[in-house]
Amino acid sequence: MRARELAAEYPTVTPSDSAMDAARLLAGQGLPGLVVVDGEGRAVAVVPGSRLLRQIVPAHVRDDPALARVYDERHADRLCAKLADRTVADLLKDDRIPLPVVDLDATVMEIASVMAGARSPVVAVTDNERRPEEGAVVGVITAARLLERLLPA
Amino acid sequence: MRARELAAEYPTVTPSDSAMDAARLLAGQGLPGLVVVDGEGRAVAVVPGSRLLRQIVPAHVRDDPALARVYDERHADRLCAKLADRTVADLLKDDRIPLPVVDLDATVMEIASVMAGARSPVVAVTDNERRPEEGAVVGVITAARLLERLLPA
Repeated sequence: MRARELAAEYPTVTPSDSAMDAARLLAGQGLPGLVVVDGEGRAVAVVPGSRLLRQIVPAHVRDDPALARVYDERHADRLCAKLADRTVADLLKDDRIPLPVVDLDATVMEIASVMAGARSPVVAVTDNERRPEEGAVVGVITAARLLERLLPA
Repeated sequence: MRARELAAEYPTVTPSDSAMDAARLLAGQGLPGLVVVDGEGRAVAVVPGSRLLRQIVPAHVRDDPALARVYDERHADRLCAKLADRTVADLLKDDRIPLPVVDLDATVMEIASVMAGARSPVVAVTDNERRPEEGAVVGVITAARLLERLLPA
């Protein structure tokens, strides 16, 4: 069993995409996070869903969560609307979580090792065997998918 | 919209459960992580799928991922079998990621604030309004679910 057999299709976004469209993609498909690739399909970063939420929570509320109860639904709508003025690149500004990569021939143990080390919910599989980080992302592998194949029946 | 309307059912495990059973649950249902509760259903921790994988990757492979390619499928099977001797409590030993909680009446902004601050893939909803951390977990909310309700149509 190699990465090529484990890789599943996963929607990607690019840094120039609207943060609103990216949030809709995540919400609509129930994704755990966004996989960000550049114009050539190379791995850029992973954005967990919680990171997107940081964008719509005002700093003073983050500092004092008790303030959050005073925000009603309309306030929240207005804050969400801010996402339309931002791009995926803006989501990566404070802290960028690298998207870990493996090549198509990576073994289950290699994939597990990379995923465990990166503490990422997904590993991207790319088409460059020598330098996976320079290849184009062809699919991703989640921890659940890997364990499904690894666990004794 | 309050937490009670957003909370979705989510399988839980307890610290005394077998790590193998917990891994099968995660793999079988494609969960992003395990939600750990105590005997009274109170929130204990969240275990991302990648944390489970750390258990089956030997320390020397974690230190030098290049060693991983020499492990074939049978090696991996044997390492997975180790999970049967471990409990969920063992998975929490090195670093325990707290499971963030909100009460049933939490607003969308409160939930977003708690989730953004904890950097957790899920927030647990509990039945104790005054001290949510002492209540029993009745469901969870993912970032995707929250964004689904928050985003303007």
